[in-house]
Amino acid sequence: MSVPPPKLVVLLTDFGHRDGYVAAMKGRIYAECGDAVVVDASHNIEPHNVAQAAWVLGQYWKWFPAGTLHVAVVDPGVGSDRRIIMLRADGQVFLAPDNGLLTWVVQRAKHWESRTLNTDFDQPVCATFHGRDLFAVAAGRLAAGKAVVEEISDACEDLILLPFYQVEDEGDTLRGRIVHVDNFGNLVTNIPGEMIMRRGSRLVVSCKGREITSLRRTYSDAKPGELLALIGSNNTLEIAAREKRAAELLDAGYGDEVIVRFLT
Amino acid sequence: MSVPPPKLVVLLTDFGHRDGYVAAMKGRIYAECGDAVVVDASHNIEPHNVAQAAWVLGQYWKWFPAGTLHVAVVDPGVGSDRRIIMLRADGQVFLAPDNGLLTWVVQRAKHWESRTLNTDFDQPVCATFHGRDLFAVAAGRLAAGKAVVEEISDACEDLILLPFYQVEDEGDTLRGRIVHVDNFGNLVTNIPGEMIMRRGSRLVVSCKGREITSLRRTYSDAKPGELLALIGSNNTLEIAAREKRAAELLDAGYGDEVIVRFLT
Amino acid sequence: MSVPPPKLVVLLTDFGHRDGYVAAMKGRIYAECGDAVVVDASHNIEPHNVAQAAWVLGQYWKWFPAGTLHVAVVDPGVGSDRRIIMLRADGQVFLAPDNGLLTWVVQRAKHWESRTLNTDFDQPVCATFHGRDLFAVAAGRLAAGKAVVEEISDACEDLILLPFYQVEDEGDTLRGRIVHVDNFGNLVTNIPGEMIMRRGSRLVVSCKGREITSLRRTYSDAKPGELLALIGSNNTLEIAAREKRAAELLDAGYGDEVIVRFLT
Repeated sequence: MSVPPPKLVVLLTDFGHRDGYVAAMKGRIYAECGDAVVVDASHNIEPHNVAQAAWVLGQYWKWFPAGTLHVAVVDPGVGSDRRIIMLRADGQVFLAPDNGLLTWVVQRAKHWESRTLNTDFDQPVCATFHGRDLFAVAAGRLAAGKAVVEEISDACEDLILLPFYQVEDEGDTLRGRIVHVDNFGNLVTNIPGEMIMRRGSRLVVSCKGREITSLRRTYSDAKPGELLALIGSNNTLEIAAREKRAAELLDAGYGDEVIVRFLT
Repeated sequence: MSVPPPKLVVLLTDFGHRDGYVAAMKGRIYAECGDAVVVDASHNIEPHNVAQAAWVLGQYWKWFPAGTLHVAVVDPGVGSDRRIIMLRADGQVFLAPDNGLLTWVVQRAKHWESRTLNTDFDQPVCATFHGRDLFAVAAGRLAAGKAVVEEISDACEDLILLPFYQVEDEGDTLRGRIVHVDNFGNLVTNIPGEMIMRRGSRLVVSCKGREITSLRRTYSDAKPGELLALIGSNNTLEIAAREKRAAELLDAGYGDEVIVRFLT
Repeated sequence: MSVPPPKLVVLLTDFGHRDGYVAAMKGRIYAECGDAVVVDASHNIEPHNVAQAAWVLGQYWKWFPAGTLHVAVVDPGVGSDRRIIMLRADGQVFLAPDNGLLTWVVQRAKHWESRTLNTDFDQPVCATFHGRDLFAVAAGRLAAGKAVVEEISDACEDLILLPFYQVEDEGDTLRGRIVHVDNFGNLVTNIPGEMIMRRGSRLVVSCKGREITSLRRTYSDAKPGELLALIGSNNTLEIAAREKRAAELLDAGYGDEVIVRFLT
C-alpha cells in the first residue's frame, strides 16, 4: 500500500519546557521538511518514566489520521546500544527507543510491523541527544518524502514490551493492573471495557482492600468524595473519586492489582 | 455575511500537559480537517476553574483574525445535561460548555449571537471526555467546512454568565472586583480603563484596606516592592507591586472588591 | 542577498502557560500573517531570567532553517527606554529586547548584524506588554513580507552582551563559568568542546572544590550517582551526575567558575 509522506509529526518527550531541547528537535524537523506540521502531544512526561509515556501515547495515537508520524523520546538508554524502533500501525508510523514505549500502540493496533532504524546517518550524532540528531532528522526526512521507512530500517521481530500487557481472564474474574495515574488522580487500568461489558454490570471491583460494587457512566454520577468505577475515555476500567484523587484515597499507583469479580 | 471556514483552531483547556487528553483532541481535529492550524492558547488552567479560563479567553480572543475558531474546554459538568454553546462574536466562532466561560468574550464583543450545539452526532461519545468526542469533532468539521454553525446548532438566548460581569458606577465612585490573579501575582479587575480615564487621574484605589493614590503607566514607574495601580494590558484596572506579588502583599484574590474614588 | 520572508516564527518567553499572554502574541502574528507557522520554543523561562533565556535560545536557534524568525521576550525593562534589537545571524532573524538575550547567538554566528527596531508603529502600544503590541506585530509583518528588517530598523553597533561571553585561555588551563543549569540538574559551561578536544583528554575539571579526572562520552558511561564531565549536546563542557542532579551534589549554579587543567 502506497502512503503519502506524513506531514503531521507528533512529539512526545520528557524534556520539559525550559531547556530548548524540544525546540532543537523542531528546528531539525523543519530544516528537513519545511512544510511539516509539528504537533506537541506532551513534553511533561516524568523524566525517564517510560511506562507513563507508553500509556499516554497509547491513549492518543489512534485519533490521528492515517499518515501521521509519531516521535516519542523518553530514552534513559540514550547513547547505549539500545535500538530505535520504527513501527507501522494501522496506517501511522512511530519512532521510539526500544524500551517498551510502543507497548500500548501494539496492543491496540489491528495490524503492525516493527523495524529498527538504521542509524548510519551522514551527519554527526551527539551521544547524549538522539532526540535531536537521530529521531528528529529521521522524522523530518520521512515527512519530506526524502526517505521511506523501509529504506532506513531493518527487520525486527522482538520489540520490547512492558509488563501488564495482558489481563488475566479467569472466566468470572479478571485480574488487571493500574497502568496510569492521570492528572486528576484517576487510576487507569489495563482491563478493556469490552471484557467487562460483555459479562454484564453486576460486579465487584477491588483494589488495595477496597471494594466498589457498581459501574458508573460518568464522574458526576457519584456523590462528592465517593469512590467509583467506570469505563474511562481510553476504554479501559478506571477507578476515580468525584472531586477527589482516587490515587490518594486508595494509596494506589502504577502496577497495583485490580480485580473484577462478576456476580451471577 | 458569508465567512470562509475557519482554519485557525485555538485550544484552551484545564487538561494539563501530561495525559494525552490534549493530543487526542488535536488528533480528532486533524482527522476531520487535514489543513487545520491548531494553536495552543493554554492547557494549564487550574482544574475546573471556569472563572480563570473565562478571563484568559477574554484577554486573548480579540487579537486573533476574523474566522478563528476558539475551543474552550473547562468543563466540570461533562456528561451531565449542561449545554454546549456555539457563539459568533465579531467574526470569530467559539465552542464552550455553558458555564460562564464565554462571559468576557460577550462583554467585549460588539456583536454576538449564541446557539447551542446539537450533539446528535453520528459517532459514539464518551461521557467523560466531550473535549475529544464532541468539541474537537465539531471544531474539525467547522474548520473543514463540512458543517456550518447554523446547521449543527439551535437558537439559545439565555447563555450563562459569571458574576462580576458589570461594574457598579456611582458617579464619583466605581466598585469592581478582582477577576484574575496572573502568573506574576498581579490583581486584574473588571474595571475598564475607559471608565477611569474619562474621569481623570486624581483618584484613590482601595482594596483590602490599602489605598493607592496614583495611576502609573508601567511597572517600572514604581519603587521596588511598592504597590501600584495601572491600566493593564487587557485594558482594565490592575493592582501590582514592582518585583513583588500584589496578591500576597494584599492577601487578595478572585472576587475581592476594588473601589476607585475620584477626587474633584 | 535577497531572502524570502520568514514564515516560521519561533517564540521564547517567560510568560508561563496560564494567562493568555502567549495566545495574545500568537493572535497578533496570525492577524498580520495568516500563513505564519508559529512554533513554541519555551514559555517557561524563569520570570525575568535573561541569562537562562539567552542560553536556551543559543542552544536551539542554529537547528532551524534559514529564513526563520525568532522572537524572544524576556523583558524586565518593558516600558522603559531599553531598545529592541533586530539581529540577522547566518540567514535567520531575531527580535529581542536589548538586555543580553542574544549573547549566545552572536557568539556562535559566523556572520551577524544588529539593528534597533523603529517603534513608531501606527498602532497603540501598551506600556506593559510589548510582546504583544511590538514584538508580535513586527514579527507578523516581517513574516508576511509587509516589512523588511532594514525598513523598520536603524543601525546599532553596541548590542548589550552578558558576562561569561568568553573563556579565559591560559594555555594549559581554561577558566570558564556555568552558564545554565538544565532540567536534569546538569551544569552547562561556556567552555567550547573544540577548545578541550584539541588539547587532548588527559585533564582535570574542577568546580566548587571537586575534581573530575576524565571525560566521558555519555551519561551512562558513569556509575549511578557518579559525577562526570562530558561535551554536552550544545558542544560545551558539561558537568553531570548519572541519575543525580550535579547542581545539588556540587551546590553549584549560574556563574560559578569551572577550571580545566590539561596534563602533559
